[in-house]
Amino acid sequence: MSDRPDFSGFTCPLPKLDHDTVQMAHGAGGRLSADLFERLILPRFTSPELEPRDDGALLDLPPGRVAFSTDTFVVTPLFFPGGDIGTLAVCGTVNDVAMMGGVPQALSMAFVLEEGLPLADFHRILCSMEATAKHAGVRVVTGDTKVVGRGQCDGIYINTSGIGVVPAGRDLGAHRIAAGDVVLVSGPAGDHGTAILTARAGLGVQTQLMSDCAPLNGLVEVLLASGADVKALRDPTRGGLAAVLNEYAVAARVGIRLDDGAVPVRDEVAGVCEMLGLDPLHMACEGRLVAIVAAGDADRALAALQGHEHGGGAARIGAVNDRHAGVVTMATALGVERVLDMPLGEQLPRIC
Amino acid sequence: MSDRPDFSGFTCPLPKLDHDTVQMAHGAGGRLSADLFERLILPRFTSPELEPRDDGALLDLPPGRVAFSTDTFVVTPLFFPGGDIGTLAVCGTVNDVAMMGGVPQALSMAFVLEEGLPLADFHRILCSMEATAKHAGVRVVTGDTKVVGRGQCDGIYINTSGIGVVPAGRDLGAHRIAAGDVVLVSGPAGDHGTAILTARAGLGVQTQLMSDCAPLNGLVEVLLASGADVKALRDPTRGGLAAVLNEYAVAARVGIRLDDGAVPVRDEVAGVCEMLGLDPLHMACEGRLVAIVAAGDADRALAALQGHEHGGGAARIGAVNDRHAGVVTMATALGVERVLDMPLGEQLPRIC
Repeated sequence: MSDRPDFSGFTCPLPKLDHDTVQMAHGAGGRLSADLFERLILPRFTSPELEPRDDGALLDLPPGRVAFSTDTFVVTPLFFPGGDIGTLAVCGTVNDVAMMGGVPQALSMAFVLEEGLPLADFHRILCSMEATAKHAGVRVVTGDTKVVGRGQCDGIYINTSGIGVVPAGRDLGAHRIAAGDVVLVSGPAGDHGTAILTARAGLGVQTQLMSDCAPLNGLVEVLLASGADVKALRDPTRGGLAAVLNEYAVAARVGIRLDDGAVPVRDEVAGVCEMLGLDPLHMACEGRLVAIVAAGDADRALAALQGHEHGGGAARIGAVNDRHAGVVTMATALGVERVLDMPLGEQLPRIC
Repeated sequence: MSDRPDFSGFTCPLPKLDHDTVQMAHGAGGRLSADLFERLILPRFTSPELEPRDDGALLDLPPGRVAFSTDTFVVTPLFFPGGDIGTLAVCGTVNDVAMMGGVPQALSMAFVLEEGLPLADFHRILCSMEATAKHAGVRVVTGDTKVVGRGQCDGIYINTSGIGVVPAGRDLGAHRIAAGDVVLVSGPAGDHGTAILTARAGLGVQTQLMSDCAPLNGLVEVLLASGADVKALRDPTRGGLAAVLNEYAVAARVGIRLDDGAVPVRDEVAGVCEMLGLDPLHMACEGRLVAIVAAGDADRALAALQGHEHGGGAARIGAVNDRHAGVVTMATALGVERVLDMPLGEQLPRIC
């Protein structure tokens, strides 16, 4: 699948360590803590800020407003088709910063490790974080590691916080959305949520489906550089496309109408969702963005998205109207409109 | 005890909620998630950046280098004499930023909640975070909440990340430490670690001891405003005073000699440590700082510390020398010196 980073040439041999699994002492501040940091973590994230081993980093940022975001990742399973909790932890925060118009500059990473976690698993996750951060062009500058006892964590939880700088003149947000604007999506909906669902044991579903998780900061820059008047950007994670569009409709007091069959959905996603009674538009993505753009610039914006490695499947899916403020509707083949609600019931837990 | 913030006049009634405990759906992105955020979290942290409910915050920062730090807090028990995990989560990150010379501007907070956690406990923790953030004068600007199943977390884990701005002209760090400098500490050593130890069930120890946890950014500003030439600042958390001093001795290639009996230690801390065979200088503090200052400015710096609510117990404890590079020594009453090592064995787990 062409829209995911290719890490196939990437090797990451496990360093020699005194233990095979995480010990309580790895979090206790003594020799084992230092070992874990020096041998496993630091070699993956060389940055001038991380090197001094201080309790924080000092950054020289370019001018502009600072975009700041945080997320803790608790996804299960830790490894899934198309990525793992490490890929997700970097992509999730890079994307939150990028959707605000921020150029990501620096990431923190904070681990909670469960006693007994295989160090090979932790290492594999660190390698994913390294590769994804390099792909996104963002530096890991500071971090923290805590260890808790067996049964006090499910393997590993990762918090990442990110700092970006918004260049002068960028103004993105629901306040700029107006009737007539066009809605674009950068690729098929629901891949991540469906991949996680099928990866969980006991569902008896086998597909070739992979998570879409990818860092989108490069895609955002290409889109903005196209000169199109981009009004608002958001990544449809928990709650999927339906949640983002409904939030926009309410915040901007506009209606949004999706065209019949315009939202790209992979056959595997449609199939799994139909089987389980789920709506693909409620399923999380982790490497897609929704862009609201001025109508006259829609073609230019779409071409910019489609020309980027993470936007090959981009499509125009609908438009903003002033008829049904706060409501998202979908045209249907029968010529009638149905309302696309916010996800009402409970979404899949621990999807990110 | 005069060096802790007084929250006794602070009330924080629990809002009416549909559940008594955390449900999986509180983290699922639907109605219950919104309820938790709107009723429990948002009312405690009103800031212009948090209000838009975006996936991040846009900050206008004053000029200067940006100090960025992250920590996840997994302390057990959640509530202890002198504070709770919420107090600690705010103090820990505020202090890391302040020790770099940064004036804290913005905090993120990210929660991992265990299904079944009493919402009254979560609320009490949020109230502590609110009070501590107000006391420190720092705004909570963005956050994240995840819920995991029973047995996948121990009640609640909190990550805070912090952004501060270092005013031009501040240069703090081990590279500035030189022979002749004086070592100051802002109060008694080891209160936090000892309070946590005694709060844990089954130790059979009863004391009046409270954690020293406090935000130190105000104290740092008072110290720097005194005009004293402050070379380096650090808060002695995991590993205690011994770890900070040993790290400085190694990083600056100097010796550090502590004067006989100069380190202030409360009687309760000395008593508990003696009983358990621990060294108070290895015990964590969460509201103390170590300052290395030019010899000629020591009196002025000490007076500045002692005049602040969080530095009343400040003391001059030793000096930097060029005799034993990388080694910390303590004078003893018998006139000989002993070496004060890094904590070698395992420290208490989940102290912060």
